[in-house]
Amino acid sequence: MSTFGATAGGGVERQAGSEADHATRAWFKGWLTERGFTVREDAIGNIFGLYELVPGAPYVLMGSHLDSQPLAGRFDGAYGVLAAAHAAHTVVRASAEGRVTPTLNVAVVDWFNEEGSRFAPSMMGSSVATGKLALAEALAVTDTAGITVAEALGERPEPVPGLEVASYAEIHIEQGRLLEEAQTTIGLVHATWAASKYRISVNGAQAHTGATVMEDRRDALYGASLLVVAVRELTELLPEGALHSSVSEMEVLPNSPVTLARQVNMNLDLRSASEEVLARANELLAEKFEEIEAKAKVSIERRLTHAWGLVDYPSGGVELARESAAALGLSHTPIMTVAGHDSTNMKDVVPTVMLFVPSIQGVSHNEAEDTRDADAVDGVAMLSDVAARLVSGELHEGDSYRLA
Amino acid sequence: MSTFGATAGGGVERQAGSEADHATRAWFKGWLTERGFTVREDAIGNIFGLYELVPGAPYVLMGSHLDSQPLAGRFDGAYGVLAAAHAAHTVVRASAEGRVTPTLNVAVVDWFNEEGSRFAPSMMGSSVATGKLALAEALAVTDTAGITVAEALGERPEPVPGLEVASYAEIHIEQGRLLEEAQTTIGLVHATWAASKYRISVNGAQAHTGATVMEDRRDALYGASLLVVAVRELTELLPEGALHSSVSEMEVLPNSPVTLARQVNMNLDLRSASEEVLARANELLAEKFEEIEAKAKVSIERRLTHAWGLVDYPSGGVELARESAAALGLSHTPIMTVAGHDSTNMKDVVPTVMLFVPSIQGVSHNEAEDTRDADAVDGVAMLSDVAARLVSGELHEGDSYRLA
Repeated sequence: MSTFGATAGGGVERQAGSEADHATRAWFKGWLTERGFTVREDAIGNIFGLYELVPGAPYVLMGSHLDSQPLAGRFDGAYGVLAAAHAAHTVVRASAEGRVTPTLNVAVVDWFNEEGSRFAPSMMGSSVATGKLALAEALAVTDTAGITVAEALGERPEPVPGLEVASYAEIHIEQGRLLEEAQTTIGLVHATWAASKYRISVNGAQAHTGATVMEDRRDALYGASLLVVAVRELTELLPEGALHSSVSEMEVLPNSPVTLARQVNMNLDLRSASEEVLARANELLAEKFEEIEAKAKVSIERRLTHAWGLVDYPSGGVELARESAAALGLSHTPIMTVAGHDSTNMKDVVPTVMLFVPSIQGVSHNEAEDTRDADAVDGVAMLSDVAARLVSGELHEGDSYRLA
Repeated sequence: MSTFGATAGGGVERQAGSEADHATRAWFKGWLTERGFTVREDAIGNIFGLYELVPGAPYVLMGSHLDSQPLAGRFDGAYGVLAAAHAAHTVVRASAEGRVTPTLNVAVVDWFNEEGSRFAPSMMGSSVATGKLALAEALAVTDTAGITVAEALGERPEPVPGLEVASYAEIHIEQGRLLEEAQTTIGLVHATWAASKYRISVNGAQAHTGATVMEDRRDALYGASLLVVAVRELTELLPEGALHSSVSEMEVLPNSPVTLARQVNMNLDLRSASEEVLARANELLAEKFEEIEAKAKVSIERRLTHAWGLVDYPSGGVELARESAAALGLSHTPIMTVAGHDSTNMKDVVPTVMLFVPSIQGVSHNEAEDTRDADAVDGVAMLSDVAARLVSGELHEGDSYRLA
């Protein structure tokens, strides 16, 4: 799978809707079809592989995403899709051989555009499927070259009714180094860090970089740089490790070698496992905005685009996963996720299990991202056992959810 | 002229080789042809308007540039070309009427791509014409869309022998506020500030913006921001007003909302009227590079791309201009230029006069850039008088220079 969009540095580059993403998706559909799964695509490009074990019953859905960041690793998302496919196939065979007694059907999913690097927002496919984002709005999003999501997806098949889902499971690399340091194989994800995400515009005035005296300058890039530094230093004003902060995207206007920037547009991301810490960080940030406006003679517009508190995963799923890990003799620990995942959307509509395997040195969104083979294989065994339990009806109390 | 590439904010946008630049150039060629000038273009797109007064004699050349920065003002460069055209036309009529006795011919020039915002380096046309930049190298430069200078110029006329030039004169807006504050009409440019210009790459490592613990981050954008702030703060470590410093251009890779930057590429510009101050600023900057590499866990590559000390304009040209201003009763003062101009190249090959008129509040590279009508008109009178003196043979001691 990692030959699609392979990079010289040993990683992959498969941004959503790119040629490499489409190639991986085509390969994935072939894999499913060869093993007797029925392939369906919805209007936002999510690919489903369905296997009916109990005619007419709702589905246990498992999956993650095949798209990647630019110059990314081979595991982020792709591991979860491949693990889900193998787990589903294992359950299908176990059912045929009478080792599992299914009460539900099983399906695998590649959620379109989880990464959001080419088309914002991230988790686009699962957001549309769970009714959190309107289809038309998502299809109209453009990349920096002006290409829409609809264009990047290309010809769409006729829409079919959304899948009826009873429960969801996802496995992902940790993207941190807690599991590796604890020498633990399986992370049982029980909550998501709280987060505040801003869209920032720093507004100054164009001026000649050479001729303009320093006191007359209203340099938007100086103001933006003060803000990037302040955002980083927020972490030093709070207990060690309590706050993660970043700015990673920046547009400088006019971006000329001899004209001071009139405007800088950028993102700003604060995350914490503590809602109190996050609230304090937001207060401190507000003070910084004012200091910087005065110091650099700029104005700063900020728009809070995403904000959520500490969000729990349903405890039933965590408990099921704990039992499964114990039964398989795999070391395990409760863990929080800092990053968002498609399961963040799915957990709001159906019982959900979210699992982690270790990342070597916590490296992620980098070509050097890696996971030990033994951990990757243990993760598949773990997800297969969870799948067998879910297909047997565990966590299912009769409710189901029809995806958009 | 300012209707070409006019912007909603009252300025112009005519980057080199753009449709608006070509439209202005076509208009300018028409203006020259209507008044009996012979139009020639050289291989790098410099446009010359020639008027022969003394068959076979070398030329007094006057001009500036018609291209602009993005969202720029109406005066920067364009005023100098229009003033030169009017001054040349005035000299032609004065010769015909016997009020001037020419010993040299007169020509006007629009130097291609003085601004360098779309195609680096700046002063491209005059650099090629004076042999400082190879034609082939200049033609192969690309903009961010991959378009070459050769493509942006379009079909080129057959090359003709370069113009034989005896002397050069240019008038420009000050782009500072010294003249306005001194209530003086004409600046007699006698020297250029010393400058050091760097190309910088800050190298870090891609990582997840959320999941990566702060101590593991090697965030290139954090390093770059520390550097932008340090460059600004250098000015506070030196005597007030002694150093102008800036970063105005930045490329962030991969520029994704959830991936820390692996690399930031940017410019860095230091200028001073004192070579000692500039040397000290460069020393302080070297210390900052090391501090920032350690603090942000990044490596910084820097390449000094342009460096020059305090450069005098030939004293003969300054003295001629002083006599001319005195004769016309225009207030005048010696002044240095912080910005580069095409005359910076021309002064190295022929006797040169460089003049400034006031900029309102020193605003430049901004749509609000302006000059009072009375000052603009006085500048044309001044340049016309300088032109008459030059065409009469002042400053010309027999040497001339053939442009490439």
